[in-house]
Amino acid sequence: MIRLNNDYCHGAIPEILDTLQETNADAYAGYELDEWCERASMFIKEAAACPDAAVHYIVGGTQANVAFIAHALRPWESAVCAECGHINVHETGATEHIGHKCETVPARDGKLDAADLRAVAAGYAESPVPEHVTVPRMAYISFPSESGTVYSLAELEALRAVCDEFGMYLFIDGARLAYGLAAEGNDVTLPDIARLSDAFYIGGTKCGALFGEAMVITNSAIAPYFRNSMKQAGTMLAKGWLLGIQFAKLFEDGRYFEIGKTAVAQAMRIKAALSARGLLVEPASPTNQQFAVVSDAQLAALGEVCIVEFEGKAADDGNMVRFCTSWATTDAEVDAVVAAIEGLPE
Amino acid sequence: MIRLNNDYCHGAIPEILDTLQETNADAYAGYELDEWCERASMFIKEAAACPDAAVHYIVGGTQANVAFIAHALRPWESAVCAECGHINVHETGATEHIGHKCETVPARDGKLDAADLRAVAAGYAESPVPEHVTVPRMAYISFPSESGTVYSLAELEALRAVCDEFGMYLFIDGARLAYGLAAEGNDVTLPDIARLSDAFYIGGTKCGALFGEAMVITNSAIAPYFRNSMKQAGTMLAKGWLLGIQFAKLFEDGRYFEIGKTAVAQAMRIKAALSARGLLVEPASPTNQQFAVVSDAQLAALGEVCIVEFEGKAADDGNMVRFCTSWATTDAEVDAVVAAIEGLPE
Amino acid sequence: MIRLNNDYCHGAIPEILDTLQETNADAYAGYELDEWCERASMFIKEAAACPDAAVHYIVGGTQANVAFIAHALRPWESAVCAECGHINVHETGATEHIGHKCETVPARDGKLDAADLRAVAAGYAESPVPEHVTVPRMAYISFPSESGTVYSLAELEALRAVCDEFGMYLFIDGARLAYGLAAEGNDVTLPDIARLSDAFYIGGTKCGALFGEAMVITNSAIAPYFRNSMKQAGTMLAKGWLLGIQFAKLFEDGRYFEIGKTAVAQAMRIKAALSARGLLVEPASPTNQQFAVVSDAQLAALGEVCIVEFEGKAADDGNMVRFCTSWATTDAEVDAVVAAIEGLPE
Amino acid sequence: MIRLNNDYCHGAIPEILDTLQETNADAYAGYELDEWCERASMFIKEAAACPDAAVHYIVGGTQANVAFIAHALRPWESAVCAECGHINVHETGATEHIGHKCETVPARDGKLDAADLRAVAAGYAESPVPEHVTVPRMAYISFPSESGTVYSLAELEALRAVCDEFGMYLFIDGARLAYGLAAEGNDVTLPDIARLSDAFYIGGTKCGALFGEAMVITNSAIAPYFRNSMKQAGTMLAKGWLLGIQFAKLFEDGRYFEIGKTAVAQAMRIKAALSARGLLVEPASPTNQQFAVVSDAQLAALGEVCIVEFEGKAADDGNMVRFCTSWATTDAEVDAVVAAIEGLPE
Repeated sequence: MIRLNNDYCHGAIPEILDTLQETNADAYAGYELDEWCERASMFIKEAAACPDAAVHYIVGGTQANVAFIAHALRPWESAVCAECGHINVHETGATEHIGHKCETVPARDGKLDAADLRAVAAGYAESPVPEHVTVPRMAYISFPSESGTVYSLAELEALRAVCDEFGMYLFIDGARLAYGLAAEGNDVTLPDIARLSDAFYIGGTKCGALFGEAMVITNSAIAPYFRNSMKQAGTMLAKGWLLGIQFAKLFEDGRYFEIGKTAVAQAMRIKAALSARGLLVEPASPTNQQFAVVSDAQLAALGEVCIVEFEGKAADDGNMVRFCTSWATTDAEVDAVVAAIEGLPE
Repeated sequence: MIRLNNDYCHGAIPEILDTLQETNADAYAGYELDEWCERASMFIKEAAACPDAAVHYIVGGTQANVAFIAHALRPWESAVCAECGHINVHETGATEHIGHKCETVPARDGKLDAADLRAVAAGYAESPVPEHVTVPRMAYISFPSESGTVYSLAELEALRAVCDEFGMYLFIDGARLAYGLAAEGNDVTLPDIARLSDAFYIGGTKCGALFGEAMVITNSAIAPYFRNSMKQAGTMLAKGWLLGIQFAKLFEDGRYFEIGKTAVAQAMRIKAALSARGLLVEPASPTNQQFAVVSDAQLAALGEVCIVEFEGKAADDGNMVRFCTSWATTDAEVDAVVAAIEGLPE
Repeated sequence: MIRLNNDYCHGAIPEILDTLQETNADAYAGYELDEWCERASMFIKEAAACPDAAVHYIVGGTQANVAFIAHALRPWESAVCAECGHINVHETGATEHIGHKCETVPARDGKLDAADLRAVAAGYAESPVPEHVTVPRMAYISFPSESGTVYSLAELEALRAVCDEFGMYLFIDGARLAYGLAAEGNDVTLPDIARLSDAFYIGGTKCGALFGEAMVITNSAIAPYFRNSMKQAGTMLAKGWLLGIQFAKLFEDGRYFEIGKTAVAQAMRIKAALSARGLLVEPASPTNQQFAVVSDAQLAALGEVCIVEFEGKAADDGNMVRFCTSWATTDAEVDAVVAAIEGLPE
Repeated sequence: MIRLNNDYCHGAIPEILDTLQETNADAYAGYELDEWCERASMFIKEAAACPDAAVHYIVGGTQANVAFIAHALRPWESAVCAECGHINVHETGATEHIGHKCETVPARDGKLDAADLRAVAAGYAESPVPEHVTVPRMAYISFPSESGTVYSLAELEALRAVCDEFGMYLFIDGARLAYGLAAEGNDVTLPDIARLSDAFYIGGTKCGALFGEAMVITNSAIAPYFRNSMKQAGTMLAKGWLLGIQFAKLFEDGRYFEIGKTAVAQAMRIKAALSARGLLVEPASPTNQQFAVVSDAQLAALGEVCIVEFEGKAADDGNMVRFCTSWATTDAEVDAVVAAIEGLPE
């Protein structure tokens, strides 16, 4: 059965497995103090044009979010995000568990709008009793968003401007960064991400690795003690070189960017098929996640060919589903899925 | 200057001050293990018809909310409330600070609607990946609400039914309970509050006391160890009898209910004046808080006579303001304010 | 029955009750933004010779400790204290509840020794894997200590020197400050306390007030946003002027210092009686708390005259008990207790 | 250079790498809902003779400790452990970070003694003011301990008896469980561990896996919602089958037990060499960790051959060091290290 329900249902790119095999008998220093981590960080800082950044490796996305938010915010400060933000709805209240409020605004095409962010920040600044509400100190966004959409360079710059105006951090969750950078029409580069944020992470789990996220802290004011925060959050992998190897392999020859392009190209074929059948849902996604509404009969028919993710009921008793490609999605799989879409009952 | 900006800008009913004077030289056991607390609890359990409840005294409302939420919920559980819920917007993220998410739904006339609560609870129950979201385990409401509205008995029973269906607690913040019970058209009694909730508190700070909230836990399953939770939250007053005295005086002759009636009667006079001038804001409040939108000129004119609370800008550049009566509001003050409203410029 | 089990079993000095009566009908701004708080802060800053300090009022000691620790420390930082430190053993894990470790060292006469503090700080600084342990960033002490002992000026200066060397805060819990400053042989003044600490609080609950602690933050780097931390911790009293009145009355004519002297003088009479009978326990306390070990028969005999606090079993089946005087202890009470001690069975 | 500084400086047993390669192109359900996890759990429940236990997989030890402690304890409850307990000293305050106090007692040969545990539990039960201290609800131990020692069956049964008497959980951190079960003279079996604890985990990171700990919850009362706790703690690995594969390979043919034996046998050779030179430290360790005190000259000489972990300064200016074998330690490495020890200067 073809799995398109998410982008973390296969192992890793072969180079990673091969290197893990080759190095299996070698002995390394623990806790990311090894040469592979150093090498990976060199590649990443070069690719992101941020030579002075601090790079750390974390096993998964929730850990990365929680460790950074706990690290950067003071107790009375909150993270502003769109209502559909991952930290707000898909992490079992992990952000609140370590003490911080997610202050939400309605999503615009899945994204946090600079005007909405400004309204929250300005609202606090003008509050007659500011100490009764949390101080919005961080803007949290995902690139791409939960809806698969990407921020334009202008949108990111607008967010940055608000952050500068109000002394806020811009934190970018890049769990699917490879797919965002490879999005159709995207005008944002990895150096832009690094330049415009205070910290961001490069997703490995969903983008070619077995697991792992590379946290890049570009704002040197919040870099100290991050290893302490990692250990406290339980995110310091004992055999840290396993993360170093993965990111070294993803970044040494631009493989990370290539992976993104492949997955997006596959997604575009599915998108075209869904669109032709009038099943595609707004906002249109230029990345590896495609959302559609299908009838019960259509859902059953799709289920003969592939596994998609059921996202909930839509209007008129429709079913919202997600098709998710990844670096591992093959042409043959997409051929079969496209054929299935074309053959769906009305 | 007449203060109507809130309902906690005066001391306490005279009986309380007198008793504090009379008992000042007496020595008592600390931490609410004194005879005044015992006496107050006897009165409260009788008034609320809940002879088996556990009654505890806490200095303020935020403490009461935090201590109870921390006590009752497990880490992965959240409190559901209306977006305007006090715990969500007026407590500097205190609920999140101790680890819990406030799961919000839009307010209906300032209130949490049973259908909205049911949708959240059912949404969790039907979730394909329930462990990725918090478990909605508590419904948090205020009686009266932040908008001054009250729940009808039918509305409370509907919330209770949802809580029973999904195994949730109903927790009622009664910071202004005296004014809710005395509301125009209210059909809810204190025994109803006790019968339909798992825990609630009776506000003293805003209703005749210097400070203090009486927490009444009617669900015996969550009663044990609440004193531990109080101490951990820093809410255990060393000289607990100060709270016992205040609630004994508020409840020994039905003074608490009387106070509510007086304040609401005063508020109704202001409401009528605001309504006559077309300044009153929907939803209409039957309690001690009255909300109006006034122009800049009107705001300035009001400011000559009384202090009202500025709540923010409304449409068309209007100013949303709150008039708040209390047990301490005098006829003369209301006369002056009503006259001022009648004389406001267009 | 004479209560000597603790120093918070009576109301307040009469001036406080009288002023509460006199001002009961007055209307004030809430949340400590009133003229009484302003007045009290002026007195306190003058008495402590710290004109630039920020002064805030909090209802009780656990709240004061928790609010300040949560405010000042980053998540990976801990507070160093003696094993018998109040935050470590008498607050139901409140410090840990809001996320911080108490790092303990053995007490020396109830106190934190500068050499022990230095060893902890140096241990961290020299740790090969510092991120695996918490960063000791605060020294927490009580003046007087839980054993009733006081730090000499030289001892406080030594602690300050360690804090300066390692970039740590010195936080002084002054719940019983009046009794410490009035201790026999004490060479520390209130200005010394202010000068040598980064923050401290002046206890009211145990020293003449109904309740209340005055937090004085002398290190301006950690002063901002403390009101936010207070509100988040639930420690912001709605009717803040009640605290302002109490501290204004305690400090306007040096009453606070006088109270301390009276209580200590009474304690010295009890101490002499205990000492004469060979019942006094080491370390000797020069303050209002006196500790003794008595036999079962002696405990029963004492129980005829006064209530003392049972602290636990001592060697040889003895009973460790505490005699605690306060501003409210009368000569007649002490006469009776001294006579009882003198008449105790062998 | 031979690394003996810890037991997590190599990859994994070859079977694991091979299986990761073989399955790399397969697609699986995420979040441990795959057939490999099911298979591993079947093996583990069989090996531990606990057919009704719930088994979960977590990436690392700190995460495992934190997720379980946060899951099992109520806010006012603490975990009792030896002063040298891993949660107390090697996890950057992670337990406190999520709200719980580690209540410590002196270690006896690195272990928590049943009499000490009983004293803490009984002390709480007899406390005159129990709500002022945390409730000791969990005994936390490591098997083997931080000193490499193991509990005898009688010692474990004694701890269990105290837990039963006082309603406490016994939680066993088995990060090095393979080496404990293989210890010289050990009389505890895996079924004993399962039978006597409420929950324990089987260490993979230090015992043959790339990473991973298998949490086994045998007390069904605390099993529900653990997946929620895992997700909230950020410990739910997206590609959960990676953990399932590792534990399936470790347990399918008793490899886990074999690994332990090999490593311990290697350690015993080093122990004999150290002992012959009089360098071994008490308490003697029957497991893979061996502790010695060496002079500066000896340390330098050792450094020519292998990397050992420096643990701190000992008396007489000695250096406490740790020799740590693992499943990956070869005969040739031990030959070289033994020769080096034999050849150390006086």
